[in-house]
Amino acid sequence: MTAAAQTAKKLDLGNAVELVSKEEGHRQPLAPEFVSLEDFSPLEVAYDFGKISRAEIEAGPRSIWRYKQLLPVPSNVDRIANTEPGCTRLLEADNLAKALGVKKIWIKDDTGNPTHSFKDRVVAVALAAAREFGFKVLACPSTGNLANAVAAAAARAGWDSVVLVPKSLERAKILMSAVYDGSLLAVDGNYDDVNRLATELAGDHEDWAFVNVNVRPYYSEGSKTLAYEVAEQLGWRIPEQIVVPIASGSQLTKVYKGFNELGQVGLVEPSPVKIFGAQASGCSPVATAFKENNDVVQPVKPDTIARSLAIGAPADGPYVLDVVRKTGGAIEDVTDEEVREGIKLLARTEGIFAETAGGVTVANAKKLIEAGQIDPDAETVLLITGDGLKTLDAVQDSIGPKATVEPTTDSVNQALGL
Amino acid sequence: MTAAAQTAKKLDLGNAVELVSKEEGHRQPLAPEFVSLEDFSPLEVAYDFGKISRAEIEAGPRSIWRYKQLLPVPSNVDRIANTEPGCTRLLEADNLAKALGVKKIWIKDDTGNPTHSFKDRVVAVALAAAREFGFKVLACPSTGNLANAVAAAAARAGWDSVVLVPKSLERAKILMSAVYDGSLLAVDGNYDDVNRLATELAGDHEDWAFVNVNVRPYYSEGSKTLAYEVAEQLGWRIPEQIVVPIASGSQLTKVYKGFNELGQVGLVEPSPVKIFGAQASGCSPVATAFKENNDVVQPVKPDTIARSLAIGAPADGPYVLDVVRKTGGAIEDVTDEEVREGIKLLARTEGIFAETAGGVTVANAKKLIEAGQIDPDAETVLLITGDGLKTLDAVQDSIGPKATVEPTTDSVNQALGL
Repeated sequence: MTAAAQTAKKLDLGNAVELVSKEEGHRQPLAPEFVSLEDFSPLEVAYDFGKISRAEIEAGPRSIWRYKQLLPVPSNVDRIANTEPGCTRLLEADNLAKALGVKKIWIKDDTGNPTHSFKDRVVAVALAAAREFGFKVLACPSTGNLANAVAAAAARAGWDSVVLVPKSLERAKILMSAVYDGSLLAVDGNYDDVNRLATELAGDHEDWAFVNVNVRPYYSEGSKTLAYEVAEQLGWRIPEQIVVPIASGSQLTKVYKGFNELGQVGLVEPSPVKIFGAQASGCSPVATAFKENNDVVQPVKPDTIARSLAIGAPADGPYVLDVVRKTGGAIEDVTDEEVREGIKLLARTEGIFAETAGGVTVANAKKLIEAGQIDPDAETVLLITGDGLKTLDAVQDSIGPKATVEPTTDSVNQALGL
Repeated sequence: MTAAAQTAKKLDLGNAVELVSKEEGHRQPLAPEFVSLEDFSPLEVAYDFGKISRAEIEAGPRSIWRYKQLLPVPSNVDRIANTEPGCTRLLEADNLAKALGVKKIWIKDDTGNPTHSFKDRVVAVALAAAREFGFKVLACPSTGNLANAVAAAAARAGWDSVVLVPKSLERAKILMSAVYDGSLLAVDGNYDDVNRLATELAGDHEDWAFVNVNVRPYYSEGSKTLAYEVAEQLGWRIPEQIVVPIASGSQLTKVYKGFNELGQVGLVEPSPVKIFGAQASGCSPVATAFKENNDVVQPVKPDTIARSLAIGAPADGPYVLDVVRKTGGAIEDVTDEEVREGIKLLARTEGIFAETAGGVTVANAKKLIEAGQIDPDAETVLLITGDGLKTLDAVQDSIGPKATVEPTTDSVNQALGL
């Protein structure tokens, strides 16, 4: 019996009761496993929620832990040192709505998280569950945001971390992963090599929790908090339309799950939400399958500036297709040039500097509006999941000072045409 | 009569009633002025607060506007598009406290603000007041954080911005200022040239609000919200000790003013707080005056990696000395090497990646604890006012991956000594 299994005997994972396979619904006890051995589909956490009130949530902490009853985490999760992610801004984006010719847009701005991406949410949930399972080391393969979030969360919790990145990673991402002083390892290989290595290591080290491998069912539940927050910030209701970027596809399916759960437990009046997926054309396997009306997602070799979305074989691709079709949404993709324009459009209209993934979301929203797939008379929420300071390279050639001037008022007035 | 003066007739600046000169207390009507013509000292906003309850504040928005009754802003300020800064994390930093050998440390983490520094607070207040005065353009001279905050806030408000920076500014700061598409001008000169130019331009353009020049009395009030939030997050009480970085010195004096006001209006039980100031040795005119028991702050030529604190002639220096002496605090300074160690210590223990100014705060706290000036048995709040992603250059040579490995488990295990 592994250390993890021994600890699992006295598990407190809140209202979570078991794991269920996504394909055939096979049930098994809560454990650090991620694939069903019955049907080889991903495992997902199932709950017995009981009664949850708005008042309890509203009286909770200003972090994702206000929703702890809806997550696979122990009841004392908010009293153990953690990064306290979540409760980020939901901004009414009237300038952007006007620019795009629609009635109402909301921006969910996850750049305000501790390491400036939504990954702080999923990592916090993964760490809380991993602690319950008896793991001692927090680990991940990553190309950026996840590396930052894992290294920071482990430091704050007093855990060791092992973060594996391709050695070719950009300087900013290396530095922000290294500063927390965990074990950051640069791997001589590409991201596929790093990912494969992580799966092998997860088998070898029984006290290492690879957040996106062996504790993935818990990790991915963290994305539901985006839906919970949007609904609460809208005054406890579900929005009419939402645009979500697609990497593995997990976030999109979990946002849908989150909205549904709120309806199920009576925290909101159930109402339809159209879910739209956003990809970059340089890595658009799910958009391609959607447009070809295909159920199979054909893997691709990524080539896009939106590196945080560059997963060529997205694990949750088929489930994304299912959610988007079921809700009456659509999936589009945009060129790298459109991604840059999306970043600039959001910054210019709303003062928010998003990473390339945010540019993908904004540019796809524009395209879907122009194509008539997003209803201009209904409201739309855009998920901005990461920060522009981490992907400066993507915009450096297309922005800069208006002019260089002499330190005189004449020179300034002339430069501004005054 | 200027446009600004005309608009001022129907001013709504909340509970603010007049401007008062800091030296001799001369009173004058609220206006976009920053120096008393009576005694040539800085002007500060005075209020008639009336009754303000905790319940009202707690029911307010999750931003600095929950404290709008304590700020020089109109009563509808939270209903006009703005960046919604504030309500950042206050973390119990038990790992850091243990590392420094003290009982309790709290980190106020302002990296969670919209453009990742405390400048979003002061700019939001400046913009709200500037709108009331009839200004149309938001402007500033800056070397970084302020440029980001002004450009973003103006974009969100639908205002034009004029942001003046030395042309030698680092690439990251240029790009983050440029992306919002205001008028960013690179000035062929140093920061002193840029600052002088701003003051000249403020005289020439009656509809330009230079946040830190002609509307400075309103702008600087925004720093009080750091004190308000700390007190509310501690359960409506004033902390025993706080360490504040010193640039112009404005923030430190306003944090003190904020705590005092809370006591005056009955929101907290008045209690003593020792205020400590933190400088970098390469720009430590206030620390020097403090240690020499001097009332005059002798200007210096800055030479430090803590560029956001590198103000050689700090306008509020004398007032900082007064507050620190009055409260029983102290002012220290640390070398650039200690600043780097401070950044790394905070990241390693609490998972927070601060800019160089944060390293200054942490390193000074360490030094003040070791010297016995900070009481290890009393709690201490550290203000972390900006983000490490903006000052990567400062740490790039001292951090990095633990090792470069082959994509094999053997190679990883060997690198980690397993």
